[in-house]
Amino acid sequence: MNSGTVETPVFMPVGTQGTVKAMSQQELASMGFEIILGNTYHLYLRPGAELIQRAGGLHKFINWHGGMLTDSGGFQVFSLEHIRKIGEDGVVFRSYVDGSYHEFTPERVMEIQSAIGADIVMAFDECAPYPCEKDYAVEAMRRTHEWAKRSQDSAGADQAFFGIVQGSVYQDLRAESAEFIASLDTDGIAIGGVSVGEGKQLMMNAVDWSVPHLPEHKVRYLMGVGTPEDLIDSVVRGIDMFDCVLPTRLGRNGSLYTTYGRINIKNNRFIDDLTPIDPECDCWCCRNHSAAYLRHLYKCDEILASRLATYHNLHFYATLMRRIRQAVEQGRLMEYRKEFLEKYRKHAAAVHDELPRLETDREGRMRSGMEYVEKGE
Amino acid sequence: MNSGTVETPVFMPVGTQGTVKAMSQQELASMGFEIILGNTYHLYLRPGAELIQRAGGLHKFINWHGGMLTDSGGFQVFSLEHIRKIGEDGVVFRSYVDGSYHEFTPERVMEIQSAIGADIVMAFDECAPYPCEKDYAVEAMRRTHEWAKRSQDSAGADQAFFGIVQGSVYQDLRAESAEFIASLDTDGIAIGGVSVGEGKQLMMNAVDWSVPHLPEHKVRYLMGVGTPEDLIDSVVRGIDMFDCVLPTRLGRNGSLYTTYGRINIKNNRFIDDLTPIDPECDCWCCRNHSAAYLRHLYKCDEILASRLATYHNLHFYATLMRRIRQAVEQGRLMEYRKEFLEKYRKHAAAVHDELPRLETDREGRMRSGMEYVEKGE
Repeated sequence: MNSGTVETPVFMPVGTQGTVKAMSQQELASMGFEIILGNTYHLYLRPGAELIQRAGGLHKFINWHGGMLTDSGGFQVFSLEHIRKIGEDGVVFRSYVDGSYHEFTPERVMEIQSAIGADIVMAFDECAPYPCEKDYAVEAMRRTHEWAKRSQDSAGADQAFFGIVQGSVYQDLRAESAEFIASLDTDGIAIGGVSVGEGKQLMMNAVDWSVPHLPEHKVRYLMGVGTPEDLIDSVVRGIDMFDCVLPTRLGRNGSLYTTYGRINIKNNRFIDDLTPIDPECDCWCCRNHSAAYLRHLYKCDEILASRLATYHNLHFYATLMRRIRQAVEQGRLMEYRKEFLEKYRKHAAAVHDELPRLETDREGRMRSGMEYVEKGE
Repeated sequence: MNSGTVETPVFMPVGTQGTVKAMSQQELASMGFEIILGNTYHLYLRPGAELIQRAGGLHKFINWHGGMLTDSGGFQVFSLEHIRKIGEDGVVFRSYVDGSYHEFTPERVMEIQSAIGADIVMAFDECAPYPCEKDYAVEAMRRTHEWAKRSQDSAGADQAFFGIVQGSVYQDLRAESAEFIASLDTDGIAIGGVSVGEGKQLMMNAVDWSVPHLPEHKVRYLMGVGTPEDLIDSVVRGIDMFDCVLPTRLGRNGSLYTTYGRINIKNNRFIDDLTPIDPECDCWCCRNHSAAYLRHLYKCDEILASRLATYHNLHFYATLMRRIRQAVEQGRLMEYRKEFLEKYRKHAAAVHDELPRLETDREGRMRSGMEYVEKGE
């Protein structure tokens, strides 16, 4: 990659519109993140690929010195079902910014991603919804394969190119898709069409059905995943890369990851809790502030609340991935998994009751949450 | 003060609810701010003085190592005209948080400020509205004087106590009020009842009519002021302390102070401006980001936009005050004023056309903007 190497397994914070919400680029680097994700769909519509190119690419436009991956925008245009027209050549959609019409084809999307200039670019794919009849899953997969070839042919030489496996929740389709994408000339392979509301079991099935058909030497990226538990369980299955809006979105909503499970800071039990939210965390938030102060900031709708919580949650993910990497190196991933989960699930039951079910959504991968897609997370 | 000394003339960023909006405490310190302001009215209602006291005071609750001043909350309760009942003893008002009734008397307000534990506390006063008939201005001033005595009698020994001069736009009342407040046992004296929509000339009159009656050895604090020009012109007149929401509020609204005047970052002329917003500024925002990126963040309603702009504006104020202090030391304040204004007014005319008139408002001092008071800025 242009911007150096990245240690895997790796989690990429989502910087939809050229910013990881509530964070500065310096803060992301301070937590040890080496690569972030940008959304082609959003950046194409605003500020536009032309301006980003004129700025010298997205790295320079936002002043980020680490790695950068852009998705293909395919999912976002497919999410906006009421305004899309799908053809063999591509998809016509309306801009959520000004209502104008646009067309994404594999060639156009690769051209846009080239202008944006990320280190890793993704093939244009069709992410089938969930639930999905098998007939449609076949059709979407076939189109994805066709578009993957055309994307590959249009990909620039100076960017790493990843194909995307589809196939919905069908074992034979996942196997067929994985084999096909593995046959292309790619630098890495993503498993897409997951985290669309199918639940953890079906998601892990999709991984298990795809991975055996993927070459050992290529990086594997599970798109839009996931919870801390999802990350560990996917690394166990051979996944190397992840992205997800959970830590940032939940942070802004007052939901915080801790060693002992996820908590809702707005809960009354934190009113006069003058200790840090996670006694085992050494992040900027936990070193400096109490749960009571954080709760107060949330109640007052203060920007610092989103900043502290987002930082804390991303720091939690960065720490988790670092420990996963260490455990992999030491050949003790399953022991680490057990240790982590024993603590983490301590309060899990209570936590799941009080929080909305957002576990499986990702940037633009949540069909029931269109407002997120349109607003840029 | 408990937290050390503060160099004057000094500007205090406004931290209404225990946070200077969009900033971290570390960022405030990094800009060189030595003292910030908290609003008694807001903090009393949420999270409550009791919790702050239990945390060891506001410094500890928010983890701020610099100085802290709390206003008396008087103005805020007087701003909420439709729900107040003014008596000789104090004011009854309704909480904007939950609608409950509360009474502020001088004794109660000093007790609350003692619990909050700021380094400097203010007397409970009545800030007359503008415009204001002379009869009412006399009545409000008389009540302010009575309450100032009672506040003085209730003030704790471990906090610096400031009285407040009132008298509206009337020369004889300002003189009478300044003389009366000067006769009390205070550590500093504030000029209140300004920046309420009376305009620059009447505001400077209030300063000119009050200052001659104030003792040389006591700090003078002009409440809720002001624009960069107001700050210089007030220091020229002998003022030592200021607070104002302008840099933070305008920052959040996309209005940025630059060496060459105030700009609106949403303006189309910044669409493809890949240079910093102020070529002469070395702040975090200007060292790292372009006007085009900042504009993009604003257009997308991203939190980082508010962060960068607030930091930049506060840095502008911090730099201005540092240069004013240097100029005072070197005995060349009027030359500095001329130099500053020559550059700053370069684009002033254009700027004033495109921006809302917010020049004279301060935290809770804007009767036409009740939503700001209620929301906590």
